[in-house]
Amino acid sequence: MTFVRQPTRAGVRDAAAKIAAILPPSPLFVAEIRGIPVAFKAEALQPVGAFKLRGAWHRLTAIDEESRGKGVVAFSSGNHAQGVAWAAKRLGMPAVIVMPADAPKSKREGTLALGAEVVSYDRATQSRESIAAQLAEARGAVLVPSFDDPWIIEGQGSAGIEASVQMVERGLGEPVQAIVPCGGGGLAAGTALGLRDAFVTVVEPEGWDDMRRSLEAGWIEPVGPNPPPTACDALQTTLVSSLTFDVLSRRGVQGVAVSEAEIRAAQRWAAERLRLVVEPGGAVALAALLAGKVEVTHGTLVILSGGNVDLAAYGAVLAGND
Amino acid sequence: MTFVRQPTRAGVRDAAAKIAAILPPSPLFVAEIRGIPVAFKAEALQPVGAFKLRGAWHRLTAIDEESRGKGVVAFSSGNHAQGVAWAAKRLGMPAVIVMPADAPKSKREGTLALGAEVVSYDRATQSRESIAAQLAEARGAVLVPSFDDPWIIEGQGSAGIEASVQMVERGLGEPVQAIVPCGGGGLAAGTALGLRDAFVTVVEPEGWDDMRRSLEAGWIEPVGPNPPPTACDALQTTLVSSLTFDVLSRRGVQGVAVSEAEIRAAQRWAAERLRLVVEPGGAVALAALLAGKVEVTHGTLVILSGGNVDLAAYGAVLAGND
Repeated sequence: MTFVRQPTRAGVRDAAAKIAAILPPSPLFVAEIRGIPVAFKAEALQPVGAFKLRGAWHRLTAIDEESRGKGVVAFSSGNHAQGVAWAAKRLGMPAVIVMPADAPKSKREGTLALGAEVVSYDRATQSRESIAAQLAEARGAVLVPSFDDPWIIEGQGSAGIEASVQMVERGLGEPVQAIVPCGGGGLAAGTALGLRDAFVTVVEPEGWDDMRRSLEAGWIEPVGPNPPPTACDALQTTLVSSLTFDVLSRRGVQGVAVSEAEIRAAQRWAAERLRLVVEPGGAVALAALLAGKVEVTHGTLVILSGGNVDLAAYGAVLAGND
Repeated sequence: MTFVRQPTRAGVRDAAAKIAAILPPSPLFVAEIRGIPVAFKAEALQPVGAFKLRGAWHRLTAIDEESRGKGVVAFSSGNHAQGVAWAAKRLGMPAVIVMPADAPKSKREGTLALGAEVVSYDRATQSRESIAAQLAEARGAVLVPSFDDPWIIEGQGSAGIEASVQMVERGLGEPVQAIVPCGGGGLAAGTALGLRDAFVTVVEPEGWDDMRRSLEAGWIEPVGPNPPPTACDALQTTLVSSLTFDVLSRRGVQGVAVSEAEIRAAQRWAAERLRLVVEPGGAVALAALLAGKVEVTHGTLVILSGGNVDLAAYGAVLAGND
């Protein structure tokens, strides 16, 4: 039996300090919903367009000096890929990213532009886990999972701590509740660890709400056999991990599912009211609030987790009105 | 002969201090163009979606206490309207805004949401100047022009000073050149005053490039009789003012014109690379740089001046590829 390190609140605080040393805080915006000011953490404005560089930086800086030369391997539909590539470039480490062949063009190009090597696979027939594991084995590189890793969870959680400081500075007080997009649950678990006193809600697209069902059941349940199509390429995780589930379960976190139409409405709201480009998966927490699935209260923090879009699809969403 | 106060560099610095006391700096983003890091001042992320609250705040706070109760009157296609309404609301002053009937819905609604009274006029047949002057006369209110006013010019210029501080903090050094959208020239003149050592370029849509022609001629020339349609509702000024022209002329500022297609390409670039919603008029400076009409150099500052869009039109721009 392998001992797995558990992510900790101290680890999240350590990650927050490490990230503050290299990056300015992502902007925090305040806008009213139903007359109540709500704080929006604009992780879409990170250099790679998503929060993922947080976990990657915390993980890669934990690799000892003599192993760094052999590099890292990651699998990702795009945002984690760019986060790992960004951190690897900054540390002078080689990075190989295993990406689905149908990943958004902007995410693939962003990864290549950061100097990473990209290996494609077919989402329907191949296992990215086994491809990545084989690559890592062959090269002696460190495999960097997108959420099933204590450093990754702690690193992502730095977003919540950073937002909390900004909310206090802006006179809003510490977050009373945090609403967080959830794929594998890394950002959600990290945020729940970092914000000890906030009520946390995780949000998933309908049909991909396995974390919601798992939290209700009390054990991990996978996504069903034929999940519906979703625009949220960043949230298509079919099975969460014990690491993320256990944190969320212990913290009494609730799960909520939103429809594709609610997600599109949230993307439109963010463009019009915040002038922010938010990708579908990055808009689910806002969608839950706008749709009335989570109550708007004072001290609400919404994480807008990513903004890497394919322009044609995004433009069609903005121009539409469904 | 009326003595008109000239805008000054000291006034711009005073405005910058006044604005820093009430608002956090708008974010500054850094992204590479042709391999050179360029600084982008994201005025689209101001609370009203544009830089216009800067001039409005500097102007309205200069109105003496006993006159404040009678309020202010402004005419504007939208962004200046929201800036004045925002400042008036914050100071508890009544505000009347004269807006063209065809102003973008988002700008009209934004102005109303800030508590201002909106009076509509027909852009083709009525003079907004005379409507506004009559309203101001009847109410004893102060008329707040959108650019032909020393306080407004000084206030807008605070954006440049703020950006310069941020560029130094980010290790980019003070701006070597600043590229600025130009309608009546308030932002441009204020920036030129505030950034004494930067080479300044003002950018207008083709056919509306009267400031460019005026700077080349050495005297003020109006827009021609049948200007082409432009998506830049914020830059449809047919005659600049002596106040703005004189500042720009004395500073040796150059003018550049960009096409509608170049503006759309810039809006797409800003959405994809910066995850920022930028309106057509707010994207002209970026358009000039991307189109190669202004050389990319180290120390380049681009002002993205506004982000108030009608979603349907904006979505069509993003989805298009012309």
